[in-house]
Amino acid sequence: MTDDTQALSGTDLIRAAELAAQLRVDSIRSSTSAGSGHPTSSMSAADLLAVLVSRHLRYDWDHPGDDRNDHLIFSKGHASPLLYSVYKAVGVVSDEELMTGYRRFGSRLEGHPTPVLPWVDVATGSLGQGLPDGVGVALAGRYLDRLPYRVWVLCGDSEMAEGSIWEALDKASYYQLSNLIAIVDVNRLGQRGPTELQWDLGAYAARAAAFGARVLEVNGHDLSEIDETFAAAEDTSSGQPTVILARTRKGRGFSEVEDKEGWHGRPFPPDMAARAIAELGGERDLIVRGPQPAVTAPGDEPAMPAAADQAHGNPETPAPAAPKYSVGEKVATRKAYGDALVALGADQPRVVALDGEVSNSTYAMEFAKAYPGRYFEMFIAEQQMVAAAVGLSVRHYIPFASTFAAFFTRAYDFIRMAAISQANIRLAGSHAGVEIGADGPSQMALEDLAMMRAVHGTTVLYPSDATSTAALVEAMAQRPGISYLRTTRGAYPVLYDSSDTFPVGGSKVLRSGPDDAVTLIGAGVTLHACLAAAESLASDGLQARVIDLYSVKPIDSGTLVAAAAATNGRLVVAEDHSPAGGLGSAVADALLEAGVQGLRLTHLSVRDMPGSGTSEELLAAAGIDAPHIEAAARELIGG
Amino acid sequence: MTDDTQALSGTDLIRAAELAAQLRVDSIRSSTSAGSGHPTSSMSAADLLAVLVSRHLRYDWDHPGDDRNDHLIFSKGHASPLLYSVYKAVGVVSDEELMTGYRRFGSRLEGHPTPVLPWVDVATGSLGQGLPDGVGVALAGRYLDRLPYRVWVLCGDSEMAEGSIWEALDKASYYQLSNLIAIVDVNRLGQRGPTELQWDLGAYAARAAAFGARVLEVNGHDLSEIDETFAAAEDTSSGQPTVILARTRKGRGFSEVEDKEGWHGRPFPPDMAARAIAELGGERDLIVRGPQPAVTAPGDEPAMPAAADQAHGNPETPAPAAPKYSVGEKVATRKAYGDALVALGADQPRVVALDGEVSNSTYAMEFAKAYPGRYFEMFIAEQQMVAAAVGLSVRHYIPFASTFAAFFTRAYDFIRMAAISQANIRLAGSHAGVEIGADGPSQMALEDLAMMRAVHGTTVLYPSDATSTAALVEAMAQRPGISYLRTTRGAYPVLYDSSDTFPVGGSKVLRSGPDDAVTLIGAGVTLHACLAAAESLASDGLQARVIDLYSVKPIDSGTLVAAAAATNGRLVVAEDHSPAGGLGSAVADALLEAGVQGLRLTHLSVRDMPGSGTSEELLAAAGIDAPHIEAAARELIGG
Repeated sequence: MTDDTQALSGTDLIRAAELAAQLRVDSIRSSTSAGSGHPTSSMSAADLLAVLVSRHLRYDWDHPGDDRNDHLIFSKGHASPLLYSVYKAVGVVSDEELMTGYRRFGSRLEGHPTPVLPWVDVATGSLGQGLPDGVGVALAGRYLDRLPYRVWVLCGDSEMAEGSIWEALDKASYYQLSNLIAIVDVNRLGQRGPTELQWDLGAYAARAAAFGARVLEVNGHDLSEIDETFAAAEDTSSGQPTVILARTRKGRGFSEVEDKEGWHGRPFPPDMAARAIAELGGERDLIVRGPQPAVTAPGDEPAMPAAADQAHGNPETPAPAAPKYSVGEKVATRKAYGDALVALGADQPRVVALDGEVSNSTYAMEFAKAYPGRYFEMFIAEQQMVAAAVGLSVRHYIPFASTFAAFFTRAYDFIRMAAISQANIRLAGSHAGVEIGADGPSQMALEDLAMMRAVHGTTVLYPSDATSTAALVEAMAQRPGISYLRTTRGAYPVLYDSSDTFPVGGSKVLRSGPDDAVTLIGAGVTLHACLAAAESLASDGLQARVIDLYSVKPIDSGTLVAAAAATNGRLVVAEDHSPAGGLGSAVADALLEAGVQGLRLTHLSVRDMPGSGTSEELLAAAGIDAPHIEAAARELIGG
Repeated sequence: MTDDTQALSGTDLIRAAELAAQLRVDSIRSSTSAGSGHPTSSMSAADLLAVLVSRHLRYDWDHPGDDRNDHLIFSKGHASPLLYSVYKAVGVVSDEELMTGYRRFGSRLEGHPTPVLPWVDVATGSLGQGLPDGVGVALAGRYLDRLPYRVWVLCGDSEMAEGSIWEALDKASYYQLSNLIAIVDVNRLGQRGPTELQWDLGAYAARAAAFGARVLEVNGHDLSEIDETFAAAEDTSSGQPTVILARTRKGRGFSEVEDKEGWHGRPFPPDMAARAIAELGGERDLIVRGPQPAVTAPGDEPAMPAAADQAHGNPETPAPAAPKYSVGEKVATRKAYGDALVALGADQPRVVALDGEVSNSTYAMEFAKAYPGRYFEMFIAEQQMVAAAVGLSVRHYIPFASTFAAFFTRAYDFIRMAAISQANIRLAGSHAGVEIGADGPSQMALEDLAMMRAVHGTTVLYPSDATSTAALVEAMAQRPGISYLRTTRGAYPVLYDSSDTFPVGGSKVLRSGPDDAVTLIGAGVTLHACLAAAESLASDGLQARVIDLYSVKPIDSGTLVAAAAATNGRLVVAEDHSPAGGLGSAVADALLEAGVQGLRLTHLSVRDMPGSGTSEELLAAAGIDAPHIEAAARELIGG
């Protein structure tokens, strides 16, 4: 089917064809040796990758950290045999590693690509995420790095059914990301049978064009045509992202399986593999490298200072000091988030912010006003917002992404994958819990602490006042991994002086004394309720210790253990969250792990489905306001 | 701007105009009285709703449960003042309730619509969900109910940025849902400023058409034009869903705010409200009802038996008996899920299944083969899959939706909202934890138990063998709310005889005796490890109680408390899940709530980021296999 004409010819064509055959053979060999993997999904895209890697991807394989390198993201992460075979072909992974490492325990050649490999930007394998991640990298390239690298993303056709792909193309065209090139491997077959649109390239083309992309169609097995198409894709003058629709055949090159159902995610048994390799002309060990990254021309923008210029260059915007609040004044923690982000932006030019079209509620708008060049409006597309943060993190920016805490549930798969991607991202969720009042349960985050605690390596913060919020935002900027900040809608009194410190993993004991009979533990709005309850108990001569558990993960076990010991095991935990997986669970897990004995823990949380009302009404109805905390404390003391 | 010509004329036109004015006035009055709400987002769509409700929506307001009623879903749930004003206009909500109830504590007129109201199908307020839910209702109408009702969905323009909208249109066109009509209120302004596409109706039209919809554009303030457009939309002969793009102005009808920024989600202060009401011609109390539901013509299909026919009507498909397994044979619980679903389908004609293009892995394919008319392939679109289940539940079907457990994270916002929607849906997640082996962390569900436990009213089940899986699938069909079943990839020995019972909220004590020194608690793959560890301990004369905690929520506190008492507080919990929010947290929460003293709980879970490997290697590396459980038990006993 390969039509040998046009641009790519002679030696170059032969070399590309040989490389494509090698990539197929090595995809088969590696997956058969592992007894697991997706050879047929690799074979459909082998011609595309052979041409890309040998002639278009500008990449210094000896220096994967070179800022000028193009980016190559396998959104169809199950084609990992192909990706790793590319790594062999460019000489950075040995044949031995490929044959003995792929999908084996302890190996870096995992079943789906992850950044344990230096050439992998982001983990993929949950479909529909590589392209949104690529949007983030391309945003960095165009607006922050201002470098001419391109972001090449290999997509599967099945994943075009994920809404996140369309969020990505929408934002790519909105932000005119002509440095983003999606290559869709339209091999017609999904896991259990034909895809929804099969080889209807016209339908894909109409969709991608309607979402603002420049669309190029190509026979994905014609090396010359592929070469010409990639060359066309490199012309960024349209100001549009490019979508290349490559018509391919799954299992291409091995007649027994080509375009046949039933071969998704199945390695060939050794005898079949031998026949396939023979049909493909046997094993090869070519080393082929393509072009080096573009040399930055003298007139080009400098690599990084673009954003910094914007922050520091405007004399009308003096660098704001870190926000300071007076103890007792009422300030919403979401407001303090915005204040702190603005201050942080002045100090740290790599800090960038994103929001899901609610920046006037989350207060990210303050950052947007101060540093418009470092703010990315993602409109109502939370999946893409988190993915963009991941992509910006690939380029070593310090992204803060915000929306209502409830709406981070929309992006949970992206957050989970961000952890596997080893991304350093900061998420700020406002409008936590029933405290928000009249808007009702759809806007109330009641699962966010559980969701965020469950993800590997996360930091979960839930401050109660503006001073601690500002300090924690600053800490988040330094923190690796995924940090989550939960903020509150309403304004509550500032509790701390600006000289106080709030280390991640710490807590604050706001009341304590030798006669403490009970410990009250809260965060956010419930901490204020704990303080009021303690006040009321004190008027009856009952002393309560009060702990501000602003760091939910990691948690300050030491302070909790000491409090349990000091108050005869009597603890009340109150949280504006579901009973499962939040503050109460964090406390219980910590105390049980510490082996504390004699616990009498009363856990107040939102157990029934809330409706609308005032904050006060809803906190009372949920049983997490001061009177309920006081009653629980009295019952523990009396019991 | 209203151009009074064409179809709608004379009295009808005056009545519609009066109704539209009333809807605007009441949207203003209700939100101003509540001091909260979205009047301007209601005013933009008032003309659309006036014409729809008075002339096109076929609905018996006295019998909201009538199967033949059209459905009206406000995907832009923040326009609740408009929806509730419609309810007043049709005479089912009094002016007094509207004025004193809206957004108040204890009222059914919540900030965003929820099914505490009999005319509301699904909760909305997290944008981009009403249309996907509507796809589910329309699937029921076309394929199962076979009734001519239409599903009208009012969408906002901001929510068109959510990928889920495009998943919905994609599936609506794939399934030829000509009974689905989306009305997009393109009022140009979002929460914090202009929308991404503003009034570029051409861009929206190209996108919707490319996704397979028939697109109609309309001036959303021209009552005659609206009337004609709705009439055109009612023609279902195209076999396509319809998208009506209505160009509107936010705040329409009140010159002080019309098409102005800064008025999203803000009620008018009383003086402004008075001026607005005056400009709109004052208060009105029209009662207007539109057409009744279509009478089912004699030749029409019967209401329900369509699906049942398919299940029972084919003599070549005898009703399968409930699956039975022999103790000791190795059967994967995901396989048992498929078997049980097939058996259930024979007994219960309202059982339907959906899957995200992995039905050969989840075994939902068995159901699809047995009852193709009751199976809906959702391809790789997990958000739409869950939303379709919610919509099918609106029509009283019993949906089971399956994919890899990890990929339910993609739909978490939809699951959360399904709880607010009071939907009765069943979710089955396969490939739990590191047990899956070589595919690596992107495919490993490690957060699903935490995620599902945190949602209000859920049931969370995690069986360890085929017999209990089959029993629990049957129980799920009867269970209200959201039920989640976690299944395992690998095949493990059947533990139970088919005569055993597995009540939700129960557990099984697999080993126990008077000399038990420690309790081992597991579910899924770790239960088998607990049994092996107990065996090994027994060979040393150490007796261990073993509990199969198949019901994670609700949990069998009684059995746990008794075990703690019997084994001197020594408990080992092992789970193939993140340390936070899963089995260990469920056990800890239950025991602390029961006030059990003297606990010494060792919690084994997946604490580090896994890679690829065999099941055995990965379970060992995570420290949750039999040797680790045994070692933990020995340490507890020795300690």
